[in-house]
Amino acid sequence: MPTRFRHAALVGKHQAQGIRPLLEQIAQFLTRQGLDVSVDRDTAMATDWNEYGALSPAEIGAQCDIAVVVGGDGTMLGIARELAPFNVPLVGINQGRLGFITDVRGTDWAEALGPIVRGDYEEERRSMMEGGVWRDDEAIFQGMALNDVVVARGPTASMVELRVDIGGEFVANMRADGLIIASPTGSTAYALSAGGPILHPSVGGWIVVPIASHTLSNRPIVLPDTQEVQVTIVSGKDSSANFDMHSLASLMHGDQVRVGRSSVAVRFLHPRGWSYYATLRRKLRWYEGVV
Amino acid sequence: MPTRFRHAALVGKHQAQGIRPLLEQIAQFLTRQGLDVSVDRDTAMATDWNEYGALSPAEIGAQCDIAVVVGGDGTMLGIARELAPFNVPLVGINQGRLGFITDVRGTDWAEALGPIVRGDYEEERRSMMEGGVWRDDEAIFQGMALNDVVVARGPTASMVELRVDIGGEFVANMRADGLIIASPTGSTAYALSAGGPILHPSVGGWIVVPIASHTLSNRPIVLPDTQEVQVTIVSGKDSSANFDMHSLASLMHGDQVRVGRSSVAVRFLHPRGWSYYATLRRKLRWYEGVV
Amino acid sequence: MPTRFRHAALVGKHQAQGIRPLLEQIAQFLTRQGLDVSVDRDTAMATDWNEYGALSPAEIGAQCDIAVVVGGDGTMLGIARELAPFNVPLVGINQGRLGFITDVRGTDWAEALGPIVRGDYEEERRSMMEGGVWRDDEAIFQGMALNDVVVARGPTASMVELRVDIGGEFVANMRADGLIIASPTGSTAYALSAGGPILHPSVGGWIVVPIASHTLSNRPIVLPDTQEVQVTIVSGKDSSANFDMHSLASLMHGDQVRVGRSSVAVRFLHPRGWSYYATLRRKLRWYEGVV
Amino acid sequence: MPTRFRHAALVGKHQAQGIRPLLEQIAQFLTRQGLDVSVDRDTAMATDWNEYGALSPAEIGAQCDIAVVVGGDGTMLGIARELAPFNVPLVGINQGRLGFITDVRGTDWAEALGPIVRGDYEEERRSMMEGGVWRDDEAIFQGMALNDVVVARGPTASMVELRVDIGGEFVANMRADGLIIASPTGSTAYALSAGGPILHPSVGGWIVVPIASHTLSNRPIVLPDTQEVQVTIVSGKDSSANFDMHSLASLMHGDQVRVGRSSVAVRFLHPRGWSYYATLRRKLRWYEGVV
Repeated sequence: MPTRFRHAALVGKHQAQGIRPLLEQIAQFLTRQGLDVSVDRDTAMATDWNEYGALSPAEIGAQCDIAVVVGGDGTMLGIARELAPFNVPLVGINQGRLGFITDVRGTDWAEALGPIVRGDYEEERRSMMEGGVWRDDEAIFQGMALNDVVVARGPTASMVELRVDIGGEFVANMRADGLIIASPTGSTAYALSAGGPILHPSVGGWIVVPIASHTLSNRPIVLPDTQEVQVTIVSGKDSSANFDMHSLASLMHGDQVRVGRSSVAVRFLHPRGWSYYATLRRKLRWYEGVV
Repeated sequence: MPTRFRHAALVGKHQAQGIRPLLEQIAQFLTRQGLDVSVDRDTAMATDWNEYGALSPAEIGAQCDIAVVVGGDGTMLGIARELAPFNVPLVGINQGRLGFITDVRGTDWAEALGPIVRGDYEEERRSMMEGGVWRDDEAIFQGMALNDVVVARGPTASMVELRVDIGGEFVANMRADGLIIASPTGSTAYALSAGGPILHPSVGGWIVVPIASHTLSNRPIVLPDTQEVQVTIVSGKDSSANFDMHSLASLMHGDQVRVGRSSVAVRFLHPRGWSYYATLRRKLRWYEGVV
Repeated sequence: MPTRFRHAALVGKHQAQGIRPLLEQIAQFLTRQGLDVSVDRDTAMATDWNEYGALSPAEIGAQCDIAVVVGGDGTMLGIARELAPFNVPLVGINQGRLGFITDVRGTDWAEALGPIVRGDYEEERRSMMEGGVWRDDEAIFQGMALNDVVVARGPTASMVELRVDIGGEFVANMRADGLIIASPTGSTAYALSAGGPILHPSVGGWIVVPIASHTLSNRPIVLPDTQEVQVTIVSGKDSSANFDMHSLASLMHGDQVRVGRSSVAVRFLHPRGWSYYATLRRKLRWYEGVV
Repeated sequence: MPTRFRHAALVGKHQAQGIRPLLEQIAQFLTRQGLDVSVDRDTAMATDWNEYGALSPAEIGAQCDIAVVVGGDGTMLGIARELAPFNVPLVGINQGRLGFITDVRGTDWAEALGPIVRGDYEEERRSMMEGGVWRDDEAIFQGMALNDVVVARGPTASMVELRVDIGGEFVANMRADGLIIASPTGSTAYALSAGGPILHPSVGGWIVVPIASHTLSNRPIVLPDTQEVQVTIVSGKDSSANFDMHSLASLMHGDQVRVGRSSVAVRFLHPRGWSYYATLRRKLRWYEGVV
């Protein structure tokens, strides 16, 4: 049977030194499967592990054709953002509770990973957000997000007032603790907490949902991802913009947060039989528990 | 200036005899603009008006290149479903409160209609749902819907239990008063009442939202419109399926309601400067009123 | 140790013939504990069981000082309404899934029931709703409800428009599928499905929550139970009023549904250590499942 | 006609120097009505106005039998908390948009105030919350709140995990941006933004509602105000407790926020014909705007 992938990068949760034994087992397994193996540079340093070549994300992008990520959804989000420009597909192995996007169990990894590296998997593409913060026609921050872009009130402000436009057309003014613009991937994260709907990854749109809106008549809206969304700070002291975990604080009145669809997407590989909906039901206990 | 449209069909709210004077004025105006004018057959009968040729919807589809509809959103929905297969664009003139899709005011119609028939307008396409009810592999009902397909509990049942699949993949079991599968057009109708998000018309998806769900952990989901949604009656006496206003009652256990995207779409014409978002704010008082 | 209760009535789910063995065991147990035992007349007939004296609800009210109910929440609701005027406390034993108010497991009944009949229990009082439907100043229906009073649109109507007043003061007009006025007991039933909050049984109030409201700016309200709530049919064909399961259909415009607090309350007895909040968490998976 | 009140205290929004002319007119009006007039000390200082005696809140409590407050709901909340222990009733005059509790219009004050000071008014009592933060059995913060007590995640934390108990009984664990415990007065403020119900002021309860809960199966609960609510910090860096606007930051794991009903209440006076429900409809556009 032909091996589909030839060179795997191994990535581990940086803070977790204890994952080195699992990484080693995976490296040996992949080698036995005939793949070259490299290790993400930060992972190699964090685990003090120099047996395999250490590569930067850009080098992984240039040399590897698959990335195996050990950790939780947070680890996966971080490396996915970095590898997205290089079109390297990712598999997520989770040692703890399974995540939304890290769906191979730490105990079952060998039987899941074997077929995947031989080319037998389900692939899924997730759209990414790209944008920044503009002040006086100048970009003062730029970033990408796989989950969401959040504009939030400052720590001591009671709310932030925002003006939302899309493609230059006025949508609405919102007064709230903050505003979330979420991708389908982010629709099961913070946007869900704020009352947003679930958006299947193959739907081309962003969810716009306020956090603790000051109007009763708010309701989430799903906007097309083909136009740029602009969020302007109308009032509210020391607001912040957050692209996934990367933040810019101290926004000023008139600052504009812009979000569009990135030209690159993230590729996730799942074991055959993987189900997006089963993940929803398991993680969220979606439609479980009966009144 | 070249006239873009050549032959207009006039359609009026059937129950409203009083609209004939307005229809007559519009007919004369269109004639003066150089268009041929025909009248929808049911409208001609309801208003006892035989001055212009009366055409069936199929004849309108074959002969006319624009339909001018006088009435509310309900009238528009009805004729839009009938004309969709023929690709005839529609303009909606509303004598009462402006609707979501009938956005020319009865008092301003002349100044709005003039530019439109001369080819100066904003066009918008709305996707349509198409499907039916299957019993033992046989279609016992077929229909189209512009707003939504609703599966509802019977009048004496306390709830209906439904199984939702998409493209043959299990999504969730739902126990509720009913379930709404709404198009973007329907997202501002019944689905909104049931707690669904607003879905911009250019987003390719359906909203699936239960009515009075028996689980706390329900949450609306936006599914891609590229796969067929199947809703199977698991339990619940005398449930019904409703494609917009067309209903089939007395559903039995095992009956399956199937909904896919129609190959035809509805074309709405709006005056220049029309704004989808302004309509939301005006109709729904969306993001108005402050806590 | 002094026996607190002296004469128990046994009540079983009427449709369930199979419960007679359990009823017999409970009767023998109670007899051994020194209690007189009678059987609810309908239960005796349904199970064809004549070993113990059969009593009507009024006779139970006059002679018994405790009622042991075997069945689900529905059975309990029915007999509780009937016994409430007589102040007879109730214990609920559930053979299937535990309910909100039937919280002794069918397998554990002996160890739970022993202490209770000896006077060692936690007692809880649940307020009841009392009211009716008025047409032209005449009551055309009267009823009591432990869960809720629901005013609902007719089967073929798209909605019902209602005017809500309390103590003669105008509250709001509501357009919806229906309106629920729920007691604290009913707050975890249909009202919860419609989006209402949970109301602890010791809070003196009713929840008013619309079903699929046609306004975005709706929000449930908790009204004091010290004043009468009036709901007037403004428009909507063939609406109905439902006091728990008892219904009056074919309401006419101007009909008024009135709901006040009954002078009688229901007394539920629970095993020591029973927790209202634990029941919420178990039944509703309240605050379980993590985004 | 007998004057009901004899000595009025005048209170103004401290930041608003421009209100002195209105305060002067009111002072003269009250004097003509036969009342003694004093001025809140902070108000006198902020407006540099020494014509009338300046009193501290405690002195107002001892000497005055009515307080006339010029400003918005925020001003009213502040002085109401201070005067509550002294049982002094308050009238709120609002120069801008009418508030929930400042319901005399700045332009109509004379015709509203006249009858009130002569004893013709509607009185309403609002319950207050009282509590604090405990660390290792020691109170490190104490406060009162008329609106709400909010426990919120720290500025850099992604959430806070809280354990809620009432009267020593476990209610639930909640993971969220924060948790609001709101009085009926606060039910139309931040708690409403977070998705809570409206709680009529005469209902004896608190609303407990999470902000952006990490569980789908959350739902607000109304707890009785007769028992103390305890909220314990389970995890979350640098959380804060906020009693209305007074905050304690840097909470540590194990810290406990306790909230009970104060023995004192706030007395608001309204013009005859004032309606709580009309205020809801006006301020919130409650049940306005139609789908």
